[in-house]
Amino acid sequence: MIGIFDSGLGGLTALRETARLLPGRDIVYFGDTGRVPYGTRSPETIVHYALQDMRFLCTEGVDIVLAACGTVSSTALCAIRGGFDLPVIGVVEGAVQAALRATKNGRIGVIATGATISSGAFAHAIAELSPRAAVTSVACPMLVPLVENGYIADDNPVTALVLADYLEPIRAAGCDTLILGCTHFPILTGAIARALPGVTLINSGAEAAKLLAAQVPPTQPDETGQIRYYVSDSVPGFARLASIFLGEPVETEVTRVEIERY
Amino acid sequence: MIGIFDSGLGGLTALRETARLLPGRDIVYFGDTGRVPYGTRSPETIVHYALQDMRFLCTEGVDIVLAACGTVSSTALCAIRGGFDLPVIGVVEGAVQAALRATKNGRIGVIATGATISSGAFAHAIAELSPRAAVTSVACPMLVPLVENGYIADDNPVTALVLADYLEPIRAAGCDTLILGCTHFPILTGAIARALPGVTLINSGAEAAKLLAAQVPPTQPDETGQIRYYVSDSVPGFARLASIFLGEPVETEVTRVEIERY
Repeated sequence: MIGIFDSGLGGLTALRETARLLPGRDIVYFGDTGRVPYGTRSPETIVHYALQDMRFLCTEGVDIVLAACGTVSSTALCAIRGGFDLPVIGVVEGAVQAALRATKNGRIGVIATGATISSGAFAHAIAELSPRAAVTSVACPMLVPLVENGYIADDNPVTALVLADYLEPIRAAGCDTLILGCTHFPILTGAIARALPGVTLINSGAEAAKLLAAQVPPTQPDETGQIRYYVSDSVPGFARLASIFLGEPVETEVTRVEIERY
Repeated sequence: MIGIFDSGLGGLTALRETARLLPGRDIVYFGDTGRVPYGTRSPETIVHYALQDMRFLCTEGVDIVLAACGTVSSTALCAIRGGFDLPVIGVVEGAVQAALRATKNGRIGVIATGATISSGAFAHAIAELSPRAAVTSVACPMLVPLVENGYIADDNPVTALVLADYLEPIRAAGCDTLILGCTHFPILTGAIARALPGVTLINSGAEAAKLLAAQVPPTQPDETGQIRYYVSDSVPGFARLASIFLGEPVETEVTRVEIERY
């Protein structure tokens, strides 16, 4: 059983890719919608929340976990790996590998939440694999609320204005590759591509799903896995938001979890 | 001892007014910064969080509480009043009274979080006191993130664009009075006034502070009360954000509370 969790529903962008690569596997998804966002909180609180999320997934019998949240992956992955005896994949490693494969001029941009950028996780991972790469990191705290409130059209004027400001240092640095270091951000791929034409965008959740798929035995094409959805806030808002991230209408059951008990 | 709490730090706009009206009183402020925002969550979760906030304040020995959060005031006030044997003042009542005093044409606008608008609390309270008043309510979920991320200048172009969209129904309805039904929104008074020239803006937190002050014996002008600050996330981000809401640099001690234990 594969476990995938996120601070909210952004991780569904990674679930979508995981289900595409491993159509026969059962997946449990947990979104901490009662406490989203994580990216504006302190490292201690992020670790505390992430450990509770993991404890819940373990009660569901998962044997491999994808932390489909840039903030958790960059702030709490060591704590998680130290606390649980199963493989946990974050979104940093795969994105960094993909960015280094893609870049021609060695100038890589990273956009993510405030907590992720403060952690330096992406920049450190790039420096370890390629000490000469030049990394430009920008915290983009407004992008999660913009996505969650539907400001997602490629030509949305509010999003365009906010992005123009955030992406100016990336443009000025001449980056040819940009890591979307938060699993909400792929929803803004069109708007970001308009602001940075010609720059290769790396979807960190999708890259993590590829790493996960490489660690799980393949399934037969005719197998169909079950996907179970859990959230920590109640359910009415789920379908609207989930359909944004999954790219299709969602008609599925979702169960509420009292996450603070874990 | 006066207790004031909010989902985050927006309630500091009400604390500021309370401290001005009652300079000699001790105040305990709790901001649930580890779980902010409330306004995008379900009623059950808001009630659950608000009851924990109240239990914490009670351990501090408060004898009157200001729920300085539009979302809590409109969604959880009955649950709070039923669960605790002390006066609890919300931000709906005072704002509605002030709006009815201010309006000349009987057309009142209300802007607040999604949860507050869904509750209908402001519209119901207005209808009870003045059945003929026409109320236009608009959920404005982007305003809290805009404030928290510093998009607060009167002429900020992003905020202006978001407000133009949100406030169009208020303008079209010919409202002469607008209730700022979330304690974050007074920070945007300048930007809102630009978008709606000539409209009277009602600060719901400040009106609630006036109701509270009327219930507490006055202090001598030379008395100086202590203000203690508690938050549920750790402290580094507190001073920056708090200074936005208090309108002056904050150099005060703040203590972290593990709110989910309450």
